[in-house]
Amino acid sequence: MPVVSLPDTEWIEMVGPVAGVEAVPWDIVAEPPRRDEIELVVPPYIGDRAALKRLAMLPSLRAVQLLTAGYDDVLPMVPPGVVLANAAGVHDASTAELAVGLMLASLRGFPQMVRAQEQGRWVPVGGRPALADKRVLILGYGSIGRAVARRLIGFEVSLTAVASRARGGDDLVERVHGIDELPELLPQHDVVVTIVPLNDATTGLVDRDFLAAMPDGALLVNVARGRVVDTDALVEATATGRIMAGLDVTDPEPLPDGHPLWRSPGVFITPHVGGDTSAFSPRAARLVREQLTALVQGRPLRNVVNAA
Amino acid sequence: MPVVSLPDTEWIEMVGPVAGVEAVPWDIVAEPPRRDEIELVVPPYIGDRAALKRLAMLPSLRAVQLLTAGYDDVLPMVPPGVVLANAAGVHDASTAELAVGLMLASLRGFPQMVRAQEQGRWVPVGGRPALADKRVLILGYGSIGRAVARRLIGFEVSLTAVASRARGGDDLVERVHGIDELPELLPQHDVVVTIVPLNDATTGLVDRDFLAAMPDGALLVNVARGRVVDTDALVEATATGRIMAGLDVTDPEPLPDGHPLWRSPGVFITPHVGGDTSAFSPRAARLVREQLTALVQGRPLRNVVNAA
Repeated sequence: MPVVSLPDTEWIEMVGPVAGVEAVPWDIVAEPPRRDEIELVVPPYIGDRAALKRLAMLPSLRAVQLLTAGYDDVLPMVPPGVVLANAAGVHDASTAELAVGLMLASLRGFPQMVRAQEQGRWVPVGGRPALADKRVLILGYGSIGRAVARRLIGFEVSLTAVASRARGGDDLVERVHGIDELPELLPQHDVVVTIVPLNDATTGLVDRDFLAAMPDGALLVNVARGRVVDTDALVEATATGRIMAGLDVTDPEPLPDGHPLWRSPGVFITPHVGGDTSAFSPRAARLVREQLTALVQGRPLRNVVNAA
Repeated sequence: MPVVSLPDTEWIEMVGPVAGVEAVPWDIVAEPPRRDEIELVVPPYIGDRAALKRLAMLPSLRAVQLLTAGYDDVLPMVPPGVVLANAAGVHDASTAELAVGLMLASLRGFPQMVRAQEQGRWVPVGGRPALADKRVLILGYGSIGRAVARRLIGFEVSLTAVASRARGGDDLVERVHGIDELPELLPQHDVVVTIVPLNDATTGLVDRDFLAAMPDGALLVNVARGRVVDTDALVEATATGRIMAGLDVTDPEPLPDGHPLWRSPGVFITPHVGGDTSAFSPRAARLVREQLTALVQGRPLRNVVNAA
């Protein structure tokens, strides 16, 4: 029976028994139990990545399953011939609902209401923009982008999806526009949600021209990476109140004390809490369970990120 | 051609032309234009209800279309034989999205984040509850309750609908539970959204026993009326942090300065802003357009609230 290691007994319990697999707890720092038999390792969510060099001492190792989406720093530590799989997808629900939360909070004026509550004062605020009727552009239409779209379907909005290249639609949008269509699309949208991966093409994508193309009163929501947005340009665009912003990520991050973005009117900042919620563990446990089942049945793992 | 009055020229423009109807502006205070011909009156959204006594001077009046859902104070002013229709439904989108916003803000901890932003400080907050996986009970399953359900469908939650009497389900829930099932249902739900009408049966419905039946860490969202919740009981249940609350309505309302509810941990209060957003006018205009079309075609009006 293949032996697999999970970070601790709590994870073994969360994943639950998988027929044909024996799970042992290993934090990848202590001496490995059943060193000669371990075929798959799930390293702890948070921990010293350097300890991963101990993977090299496992003669039967075939696969490493991460609990994070990021894997760049792990790749060099994976022994030749060993498959590396990441945890893409486990943060989708949590991040997508935060994006919708940032939209509702910004449009409906929650930050002003929290400040009035701090002062113990009932301050009627009429005529705020609703999310209903808004034209929402989802910039980045991977699995989180689709999770945002799925959550917005019931809100009486119109949805436009944009990805690096134009392609056909799905059950949520008629078609996916290419990023080259942005100059024509931006003036026609009230809300832009960015959930693109950070790369050369997307660094600074939301710059002065991008923000200038958004209509007056439009809302930018960034749940991608801070560097997708040019912070100076955003401070300028929001300082006048022309553009609103809901940001879970910033550049620099953490945003330093006293940075002008903290005080820009209509800017609401959450401290990069997109993925770290109660939704993580059950989704991560489900992924691990699926991967262990695949291992036993001799099927390929999902989310493989190396060419092993 | 039937003549109808709308509050002003802005409303005439919003409603747009309806074939076979002539619309004139009348604020119900000034001398009515075309007094002898007006068959339907749309009184202003906000205004002196006492002016409605002027309806009696219109010999051809057949119907009054309100722009509000409330109509109790108008009923006695409607001349015999004249139909009164309210604006039920026009606030559904706005109120339902606020309910979802209150859920996301409360669960994900937006108020704490706004306070950290006020101080210009990046305060990481890990492990907040997500909306995903929550068991949500919608208490009151009329048109706003269904609008809440429709918005929650994409959020990976489980939905339970409760109304005054048990009945069959719809495309959103398998069945609708009766309010007598609450004692068994409450302990099994993480979020309760109240959107019941206020009447003898619902006044003080959310009392000490109700709150005690909710599990630790559960969230109450009230977008119904303040008096549906026993405020003293809620202050007690939230003071310990056992229960969270997101409230758009309070009792008393406005909540007085210095009231303990303002400072109860985990309580987020919005100042009764459920319906008053950008979503109102287009929906109200659409309803008026539909009613004028019905008038011309000799069909009965929707939303009739008197027995005329």
